[in-house]
Amino acid sequence: MKIKYTLLHKDSKTNARYGLLETNYGKYETPIFMPVGTQATVKTLSPEELKDINSAVILANTYHLWLRPGEDVINKAGGLHKFMNYDGPILTDSGGFQVFSLAKNKDKDIVEEGVHFKSHLDGRPLLLTPELSIQIQNKLDSDIAMSFDECPPYPVTYEYMKKSVERTLRWAKRGLDVHQNPRQSLFGIVQGGEFQDLRKWSALETTKLNFDGYAIGGTSVGEDKPTMYKMIDDAIIYLPHDKPRYLMGVGDPIDLLEGIERGIDMFDCVHPTRLARHAHAFTKNGKINLRNQKFKEDFSPIDDDCDCYACKNFTKAYIRHLLVAEETFGSRLLSIHNLRFLIHMMEDIRTSIKNDEFLTYKNNFLTQYQKKLH
Amino acid sequence: MKIKYTLLHKDSKTNARYGLLETNYGKYETPIFMPVGTQATVKTLSPEELKDINSAVILANTYHLWLRPGEDVINKAGGLHKFMNYDGPILTDSGGFQVFSLAKNKDKDIVEEGVHFKSHLDGRPLLLTPELSIQIQNKLDSDIAMSFDECPPYPVTYEYMKKSVERTLRWAKRGLDVHQNPRQSLFGIVQGGEFQDLRKWSALETTKLNFDGYAIGGTSVGEDKPTMYKMIDDAIIYLPHDKPRYLMGVGDPIDLLEGIERGIDMFDCVHPTRLARHAHAFTKNGKINLRNQKFKEDFSPIDDDCDCYACKNFTKAYIRHLLVAEETFGSRLLSIHNLRFLIHMMEDIRTSIKNDEFLTYKNNFLTQYQKKLH
Repeated sequence: MKIKYTLLHKDSKTNARYGLLETNYGKYETPIFMPVGTQATVKTLSPEELKDINSAVILANTYHLWLRPGEDVINKAGGLHKFMNYDGPILTDSGGFQVFSLAKNKDKDIVEEGVHFKSHLDGRPLLLTPELSIQIQNKLDSDIAMSFDECPPYPVTYEYMKKSVERTLRWAKRGLDVHQNPRQSLFGIVQGGEFQDLRKWSALETTKLNFDGYAIGGTSVGEDKPTMYKMIDDAIIYLPHDKPRYLMGVGDPIDLLEGIERGIDMFDCVHPTRLARHAHAFTKNGKINLRNQKFKEDFSPIDDDCDCYACKNFTKAYIRHLLVAEETFGSRLLSIHNLRFLIHMMEDIRTSIKNDEFLTYKNNFLTQYQKKLH
Repeated sequence: MKIKYTLLHKDSKTNARYGLLETNYGKYETPIFMPVGTQATVKTLSPEELKDINSAVILANTYHLWLRPGEDVINKAGGLHKFMNYDGPILTDSGGFQVFSLAKNKDKDIVEEGVHFKSHLDGRPLLLTPELSIQIQNKLDSDIAMSFDECPPYPVTYEYMKKSVERTLRWAKRGLDVHQNPRQSLFGIVQGGEFQDLRKWSALETTKLNFDGYAIGGTSVGEDKPTMYKMIDDAIIYLPHDKPRYLMGVGDPIDLLEGIERGIDMFDCVHPTRLARHAHAFTKNGKINLRNQKFKEDFSPIDDDCDCYACKNFTKAYIRHLLVAEETFGSRLLSIHNLRFLIHMMEDIRTSIKNDEFLTYKNNFLTQYQKKLH
């Protein structure tokens, strides 16, 4: 079946939404943060560990899986869920962001048909089109597929962005036309950069196509925070209330709060797992670098309010030792912690929205998070 | 308490022994294979995963922990068990092997007092003595400590080896004199290389010191297999029947069988986890390289007789994908599998000894293992 979103409660003081997302693999309350499993694995974690941290939807990357191991291998395995042995919902992105971010500019040619570029693995020339992106995602058999869009860098000229959003809309229609998997939902993506009228146009035209959900794209591409928040404001007012809204590539705790306040239901980002691989951990008092010498004999958990496996079983001193000694169990523990931190935060946020106390939660969180105890 | 070994049954056709090892952290049947957790972590695995594969004793390396994070940090944490949150028995080696293998010859000076050498991490000059090794192990609070011995390369001259085993014996006495941890057992190490009379002398003199167990050292240092097996033969006949016998650094399945046939009770080796990090897996039909193209669409488990987490949940195709894409979850799955393979093998071997069928087990195993189906 397609996913189904039900708005259960709107916060009385903000646009924050508490909702229910029904999927082929269970029902999940929103807003949610979605861990990223780029190559059909959330880096360092097992499927059971994902369940333990109460993850709902996870992401996988169409571009990466297209190149390796190939969508046909995954299709023969019975789809992405069976291939990676994950029985929760999976969202695949379109591959567009990777094409634009991984290929060098000189190796990339955006034409009406699609994007010509060179593989980041072996340099061979490739063409990704809106149709191919959807066909690959059909084969991967994810629960939610994304339209193939152009994600321009920041900033580009108004003229460039106008042509780009028009093309992205044509690509969205072409993707819809070939989409065939009845179990798979398809989300449209609103682009338009920091230009208010282009965001409006993109939102209105994209929603006319009646996708199963809508993403706001083109954020976290180099713009400053106020600009990012304005991009959300400019688009979200035109999105329907009965479909989920997804802010792509955003995973900083402060940005999650700002997004939720504006009515976003879904987020994803490599931030928590990438931070983990660089020895950083979220805590209620801000981020800390676990390699820091001061944690050498700190036998307390990363965050004493955290209920994750790492915090329940290991000390900062031990995790620091693992990181300094370059033992992968260290980045695994930090990945579990950082993902659980954001997912736990979402649980608390959902409760706060239900109780019309989102702003209180937000202010309390920010006061503590920005104290910089460390 | 000190460990206690009870010989429960001797195979009727070979010297293979089935016994019971009572430790501070539970009772374990022998023979056992001990996973190596060099830096207070068995690479890529959690303590729970170690329990899941039915591990008994695990190893940690005194040399590595002395350098990083330092024995005082671990002591302040409450000892190695608490530091790494492992509630099974832990054996620490003496650090000797690492000093001899990691430091370059020109950076190493073996004198009566101990060994002067340079740290493999930062080149600073260090001196490890028999007393210091034991004192560090006392602080680590492992369940079994090892005597500090010289482990010469292969081959050395008879004259060198004779001086070396004599010094190793003096070092063993010095270690015993400073050993103070009443919860910690101390094992002596028999050296002597390939020289029958030196092995005999070393075994007889070392056992006079009444250690809690005995290791056969100086194997797996470059000698051929028949020589290794002869080293065991030459030493083991002089070891007491009421103490465990430990063959250091041996983890190849064929060598485990040869060792057990000769009366060995304990083995350790980095082999299974190192193989895993190089994409190799044990199977009942020999080792396979999971990166091989032929596994790209192989949706069967690594070994269909294996009950490990990797084999119960994932296919060769998926694990191959993880390894090719350099995802650490791949080497974690292979590490779990390879360790479980050896531990499972030990379970079957113990049953075979109890039933006086060790030779049948050995022959069946070797026939299948050496078939080279792959």
